[in-house]
Amino acid sequence: MSLKYYYDLMSQPSRALHIILKMSNVQFEDCPVALRKGEHMTEEFKQNVNRFQRVPCIIDDGLKLAESIAILRYLSAKGKIPEYLYPKYFLEQARVDEFLEWQHITLRITCSIYFRSIWLDPLLTGVRPSNEKIEKLKNLMEANLDIIENIWLQKTDFLTGQRLTVADIFAACEIEQTRLADYDVRIKYPKIKAWLKRVRAGCNPHYDNAHTYIYKISGTAPNAKL
Amino acid sequence: MSLKYYYDLMSQPSRALHIILKMSNVQFEDCPVALRKGEHMTEEFKQNVNRFQRVPCIIDDGLKLAESIAILRYLSAKGKIPEYLYPKYFLEQARVDEFLEWQHITLRITCSIYFRSIWLDPLLTGVRPSNEKIEKLKNLMEANLDIIENIWLQKTDFLTGQRLTVADIFAACEIEQTRLADYDVRIKYPKIKAWLKRVRAGCNPHYDNAHTYIYKISGTAPNAKL
Repeated sequence: MSLKYYYDLMSQPSRALHIILKMSNVQFEDCPVALRKGEHMTEEFKQNVNRFQRVPCIIDDGLKLAESIAILRYLSAKGKIPEYLYPKYFLEQARVDEFLEWQHITLRITCSIYFRSIWLDPLLTGVRPSNEKIEKLKNLMEANLDIIENIWLQKTDFLTGQRLTVADIFAACEIEQTRLADYDVRIKYPKIKAWLKRVRAGCNPHYDNAHTYIYKISGTAPNAKL
Repeated sequence: MSLKYYYDLMSQPSRALHIILKMSNVQFEDCPVALRKGEHMTEEFKQNVNRFQRVPCIIDDGLKLAESIAILRYLSAKGKIPEYLYPKYFLEQARVDEFLEWQHITLRITCSIYFRSIWLDPLLTGVRPSNEKIEKLKNLMEANLDIIENIWLQKTDFLTGQRLTVADIFAACEIEQTRLADYDVRIKYPKIKAWLKRVRAGCNPHYDNAHTYIYKISGTAPNAKL
């Protein structure tokens, strides 16, 4: 087994890629990295695993590669990812790529900052952000959730069509993270609520396995086992 | 000619893709969109061009596609982009993809926010940010410029190896934008300074053509015509 997967299930793209690897039956050497203990910040990690000191990342046959979406494409090119998850036909792949490129500085950054500012930073510093700041961050995040609800999910059951792809998995993992900050996306967004159920059902048991800590820490495990 | 390219040369990824299309000898119908006039905010643009109301985007044989990197990959799949700019061999492509995915929430977001806060917002509102805010935004941006200088350009002439690729073009366009905010990356970063010269030389005359407005508005045209 030559593929080493370095990840922390508290990291959104780590979870997404973990789910994708499991659904794809990719065999890998399990290399969990505890971000909370700073295991990614050692010189050894920087030199031997990932020069950017982040997760997820892989080492495959000696190739060190970072960035979850670059890893996904690399594994797809090696024939490791089934076409239903990441299409090979260029017209279908373009639609999935459009989402994967769109989400970085929209959904991902705003959900991440919301989660960090409201959950992680207070945990580390003991200081809670002001209500004004919380409101501002929520508005920025909801501007992008509005786009998911009203544009991406306007006519289809999944983000890029009628079938689940990696786009849905990456997006769902970002949105699930906001549970930790006591944000319940299901209240305001009926389409997202129904879509999250479909994504979970389409990915289980791997979805629930990857979200074990998120459910546990947030105290918001979904009711039904899927 | 079936490819329509919608762009504004004041937008960084619009410029990058413009340079790439020109270097690739891709024929396209020129569709400039004046963001400053809000031409992307009309209902007509949303319905008929790009549902996300941003640039760059394309319409190709009826396919509407947004997101510069998704467009690049789509055109590459159609055989329109030369392999030296975006490699087809999966190991080389993975290295370029790693940069393209890395830059979104690091280099791109921090350079953009710096530029917007220091140049664009004051132009629109008449209010200059506080020195404290400027310093904070500069530090965030420089944390990523440090990574370009010390990691990406550590051992190679270009970001992903010894040859120019689309990774360099996307990155250079983000960094050039900061000229408008009176930031001169060349002072503190000798490797970036030398690399920017190489990127410009490798892309000209298309690089200077795409940057005409940036040079003019910032009053910082490079000395030598390349």
